[in-house]
Amino acid sequence: MTDDAPTKFLHEAMPFCATLGVRAASSTPDAVAMSLYWKPELCTSNGLLHGGVIMALADSAGGACAFSNLPEGAIGTSTIESKTNFLGAVKRGSITATATVLHRGSTTIVIETSVRDDTDRLIAKVTQTQAVLRPRT
Amino acid sequence: MTDDAPTKFLHEAMPFCATLGVRAASSTPDAVAMSLYWKPELCTSNGLLHGGVIMALADSAGGACAFSNLPEGAIGTSTIESKTNFLGAVKRGSITATATVLHRGSTTIVIETSVRDDTDRLIAKVTQTQAVLRPRT
Amino acid sequence: MTDDAPTKFLHEAMPFCATLGVRAASSTPDAVAMSLYWKPELCTSNGLLHGGVIMALADSAGGACAFSNLPEGAIGTSTIESKTNFLGAVKRGSITATATVLHRGSTTIVIETSVRDDTDRLIAKVTQTQAVLRPRT
Amino acid sequence: MTDDAPTKFLHEAMPFCATLGVRAASSTPDAVAMSLYWKPELCTSNGLLHGGVIMALADSAGGACAFSNLPEGAIGTSTIESKTNFLGAVKRGSITATATVLHRGSTTIVIETSVRDDTDRLIAKVTQTQAVLRPRT
Repeated sequence: MTDDAPTKFLHEAMPFCATLGVRAASSTPDAVAMSLYWKPELCTSNGLLHGGVIMALADSAGGACAFSNLPEGAIGTSTIESKTNFLGAVKRGSITATATVLHRGSTTIVIETSVRDDTDRLIAKVTQTQAVLRPRT
Repeated sequence: MTDDAPTKFLHEAMPFCATLGVRAASSTPDAVAMSLYWKPELCTSNGLLHGGVIMALADSAGGACAFSNLPEGAIGTSTIESKTNFLGAVKRGSITATATVLHRGSTTIVIETSVRDDTDRLIAKVTQTQAVLRPRT
Repeated sequence: MTDDAPTKFLHEAMPFCATLGVRAASSTPDAVAMSLYWKPELCTSNGLLHGGVIMALADSAGGACAFSNLPEGAIGTSTIESKTNFLGAVKRGSITATATVLHRGSTTIVIETSVRDDTDRLIAKVTQTQAVLRPRT
Repeated sequence: MTDDAPTKFLHEAMPFCATLGVRAASSTPDAVAMSLYWKPELCTSNGLLHGGVIMALADSAGGACAFSNLPEGAIGTSTIESKTNFLGAVKRGSITATATVLHRGSTTIVIETSVRDDTDRLIAKVTQTQAVLRPRT
């Protein structure tokens, strides 16, 4: 599989996304999507995708979505809290996390991310707060 | 590095823990600890450990702690929700997640997990609910 | 103000909703809405509606929404966890919480609730898990 | 019942605490405790204390604890997110919320609050982030 340019960029910006096989699925300022395939080495017991993989995918999409919505003068964000409700198990195929902005403030950005499998079933719902980082003055 | 027996068992039970290099640090029914080392391939931007790695480590320790506290007749647990507050960044060394039981019910087990770096600084605090799984009757 | 029948029923079922002045705004199985008016005695400092009032309103709508979606044989639900992101302050007027179902399982129902002010601005977003209660057998 | 001075101060600073009958139980910078008594008008169905009351009590103690730990130059805090795990029901007596600091930063303070009944049983566990407010410059 040849990586497309946005995926290559993602893997350089966030090396852990290369480890997980995350691919940049689409990106507008309004919604950033990333996906990955089930693999045995991403599983917990019984061949189920590990919850940490689902949270890592959602956090990556959330971080990129926050970055696309930085207020003027900001240089980045950092996740300060994240809450996930797990709604379904994944035993095959791919999952896609789609992150959107709930709140865009000058000091925090609140992101909401839905993770769906390739049958469009909702697998997890995440809400998280990203702190807006500014250059030290 | 030769894996000890509990770590080998962990890697077989949860293959994603092998991918992350998680090691079984200690385990009593009251507190299950697991650790991992910072590595470039576990990072997000700027050489910082990816939040997903921290959440995956905590979820692994939490799952094992819940499993050590199953009520009679139960066969396993499944994380149904997890919330993490991130309190510090990790750029080197190791981190250890220590999971303890907040509530041990017949249908849910609530776990609290602290993640600390190797200077004992608190990096993240996690509370999560694990559903108790029983054999179908 | 004369209470309508659904509001009277709500106040009998959940007396704290009478204390807060919560009114049943609308109810379908898909979306349960409840509202309340800003009042000085519901405030924290500086004339701002107390966060606890917002969480109580959302939890009430969430509980009623879960009750409207009980699986067969269930007799009620109980909130086992709730997470709120606060996105705006309220200094006047009314707020409305609208609860919808994210996941309807046999043992848990996951509810998502948006709280908006009377200019339709998003004030808070809540996700919560309700345990499904069944008669003891 | 005559209100003590700290409770009077609390009721003036946070009028909703007077509505709920919250009392200032103790306060050091390290741990702020507040309590309230079960009353029918604070209940949801079946004579159980409403989850919103428990969250409001914890948020009040959390806010006061954050206020006691303000960094230099700050003038207050505002809860930006709060997550509660409910671990037990309350049908009588009093409950006490005790808030402590998990993280004291220049822009956010993270608070952890335990709510116990008068038999010292853990009723709820809360983690929340408070944004640090500074004067506009």
